[in-house]
Amino acid sequence: MASMRVLVVGAGLVGSLLVHQLAARGHSVRLVERRGDPRGRGALAGRSINLAISARGFHALDRAGLGDRLRERAIRMPGRMIHPRSGEPIFQPYSRDPRHAIHSVSRARLNLLLLEAAAAQPGVEMLFDRRAIDVDCSQGRVVVEHSATGAVDMLDADLVVGADGAYSAIRAAMQKNERFDYSQRFLSHGYKELSIPALADGAESKGRAPHAPFAMDPNALHIWPRGGSMMIALPNPDGSFTCTLFWPFEGGEPSFAAIRSGDDALDYFRAHYPDAVPLMPTLAEDFERNPVGTMVTVHSAPWSWGGRTVLIGDAAHAIVPFYGQGANCGFEDVEALVDSLDSQTTNLAKALADYETRRRRHADAIADMALANFIEMRDKTASRWFRLRKKLDHALHGMAPSLYLPLYDMVSFTTIPYDDARRRARRQDVVLMLMLGAVTVLLACVVVLILAVAAP
Amino acid sequence: MASMRVLVVGAGLVGSLLVHQLAARGHSVRLVERRGDPRGRGALAGRSINLAISARGFHALDRAGLGDRLRERAIRMPGRMIHPRSGEPIFQPYSRDPRHAIHSVSRARLNLLLLEAAAAQPGVEMLFDRRAIDVDCSQGRVVVEHSATGAVDMLDADLVVGADGAYSAIRAAMQKNERFDYSQRFLSHGYKELSIPALADGAESKGRAPHAPFAMDPNALHIWPRGGSMMIALPNPDGSFTCTLFWPFEGGEPSFAAIRSGDDALDYFRAHYPDAVPLMPTLAEDFERNPVGTMVTVHSAPWSWGGRTVLIGDAAHAIVPFYGQGANCGFEDVEALVDSLDSQTTNLAKALADYETRRRRHADAIADMALANFIEMRDKTASRWFRLRKKLDHALHGMAPSLYLPLYDMVSFTTIPYDDARRRARRQDVVLMLMLGAVTVLLACVVVLILAVAAP
Repeated sequence: MASMRVLVVGAGLVGSLLVHQLAARGHSVRLVERRGDPRGRGALAGRSINLAISARGFHALDRAGLGDRLRERAIRMPGRMIHPRSGEPIFQPYSRDPRHAIHSVSRARLNLLLLEAAAAQPGVEMLFDRRAIDVDCSQGRVVVEHSATGAVDMLDADLVVGADGAYSAIRAAMQKNERFDYSQRFLSHGYKELSIPALADGAESKGRAPHAPFAMDPNALHIWPRGGSMMIALPNPDGSFTCTLFWPFEGGEPSFAAIRSGDDALDYFRAHYPDAVPLMPTLAEDFERNPVGTMVTVHSAPWSWGGRTVLIGDAAHAIVPFYGQGANCGFEDVEALVDSLDSQTTNLAKALADYETRRRRHADAIADMALANFIEMRDKTASRWFRLRKKLDHALHGMAPSLYLPLYDMVSFTTIPYDDARRRARRQDVVLMLMLGAVTVLLACVVVLILAVAAP
Repeated sequence: MASMRVLVVGAGLVGSLLVHQLAARGHSVRLVERRGDPRGRGALAGRSINLAISARGFHALDRAGLGDRLRERAIRMPGRMIHPRSGEPIFQPYSRDPRHAIHSVSRARLNLLLLEAAAAQPGVEMLFDRRAIDVDCSQGRVVVEHSATGAVDMLDADLVVGADGAYSAIRAAMQKNERFDYSQRFLSHGYKELSIPALADGAESKGRAPHAPFAMDPNALHIWPRGGSMMIALPNPDGSFTCTLFWPFEGGEPSFAAIRSGDDALDYFRAHYPDAVPLMPTLAEDFERNPVGTMVTVHSAPWSWGGRTVLIGDAAHAIVPFYGQGANCGFEDVEALVDSLDSQTTNLAKALADYETRRRRHADAIADMALANFIEMRDKTASRWFRLRKKLDHALHGMAPSLYLPLYDMVSFTTIPYDDARRRARRQDVVLMLMLGAVTVLLACVVVLILAVAAP
């Protein structure tokens, strides 16, 4: 597309990268964000939420020339560390290839990096403290309200992009149209953030891999799988870990309804997460103070309306966090939208439809896989069979790397589109089952032969 | 429950019957309706939309003592009349039992009947021209706006019921809460109302079965199945038929995108609905003037919030119209809600949860069956195999009436809960397939035996 006036709503990870990429292509971009400007005010205070960035995210960031800046700030996690109720933790590598790792990064830090990179592009204007309250999708006109003064403005653009997350105001405006399909489905589990502090006063090491005194192995995503629930922990450069507890909202123990006080939580932790308790000196206080968050899967269709308004990232398709792919998927959306805009010279509506065609199938696939991975993480990772299967996966991948690629590898360490990865994994499973069947029959034949030969 | 102050939002079919039933139990009921009062102003003008009322609807109306008033105004439709592209129409009875029929009634007329019955109960207050704009679900406080003056009022109640249809304002307020699951899915087909007038000046016959000069057999639901699309026609007491054309919104002919002018419609009808054209003198004008409507399936969960606000009918679970069960299902909801309230002495929240437990499974089932019946009506009714299957269904029902009951009979002519009916139909299908398989094998054996005996 020739140079356009673009209005991006939402300065989160996806919105910021999109602004950077659109401005790099000569479009004139306005960014509207509900919250205040996080730059230059040490906005990294508050709860530190971690993300796992994998190959897809790095691919998109490398295209923008920003990948290496992130690598400097990230902690490699080449596998899971499984913490059983009793006994030593067990390390499960994510891939046969030891170079493959997902990367723990701070959401706030990554967001700031992307926002600063976007602001440094020519033709970018950033408007903070402005809440989008309505949009005329076909006119490309967004009504915004200044959060301090309450003043209302109209902003016009050739293209409006809703990058404003799972509770998108742009999508809410689209929903008022007839024939807009929409669903929101909440998980019956909630999450609560807890913390494992650094062992001593670990000063954050600048720009390099961290050397702070970690209470556990920093190069792993730690999981305490407990059947219907779990806790995870991701490392931070300052030596701490951010823990996230996933429990059902309702029901018997453990649930957020049944266990409400810090003391009850402490008792429960002593019985069920015993190795974590000594590392969590503020567990009871954190448990009482921190809120319980919800997790939602959102589907919407179509993603664009009126030929000039389009949704991206969580605004179009929010997913649950269990495959660590929310941000990665959103960054791939940015690549697809930018490529679709590049591929059309004048027909904006066609570019937006093309972007949706490219991405919808894959966004649906990762939404399903993210739900399925919750069950894998909280339940299956603790089982011997699961570990055996993972070993078989890695062995087959070693024997025929171009023929057999485990699903986790495809999702996290390649850019094979999600749905293609899922289909290939299903085909591989069928072949594997057939092979195992054949081997079983063969072994049975050998046994019968041996018995026949050995018979007197 | 002891006497409560109940606020019902929406004076449609379900809301009006509910007010009647609640007032009959001694509750003090306020009804709030966005539109004006339809009583005493000949509100039967405008487009006449028809409903098919079947056993479930009559069961609920009979419990309220109103069934016979409706029977007087309804036209029996004991079967479908299938209109092929060429050749004579074919009558398919709905049931083996000729007494079984669905009943064509005017929505406006039925609504008026229910509203008048509700107004005649003691303790009922009706507020028209008031739009609900917000609700505090746990306080039972509804904010209403007077549509003429714009004045805003707060109305308090012990129980608030959202009976305000597929685009419910009460549900929209619930949706703002976290953990409220919701989906809306539009059909890719739209509908347009058309008309077949009475042959002469047919004056409506008062209170009895109609004798007006109908252009087709009045005692049938007429269908023009055309594969991916269809037209239907339901009789009115004045001798006319209300036709509804179901076409895809987009795509080649026929679609509402491809055929827009009255002339194009007329050409298309001459080729594809030839027997209807001579009966539709205003076809071209009607086609151009009447809007294209959408059809949506809505799921929401939970149906009650805050212990004193609850959804009913389309507000909780809108369905597409192809099984003729929207109103029937809504009337069953009224029975279930009233029974659940009766069964609890003080615990309102428990009564509301109990109502949802009773109904959700069945509402989900009829939502699915209504979508499936669209394919049956527009496509399968035209096939010989389908007609053979229907005959087999009716024959088996005749042979073993207590063992074999076709799905259509269970849905339309019994009050077996929808999901139970669907499960039973699936079991019957399995048994039928096994029996047909056994018969085939038996026949093969007989043939072999005969050949063996006949061999020289």
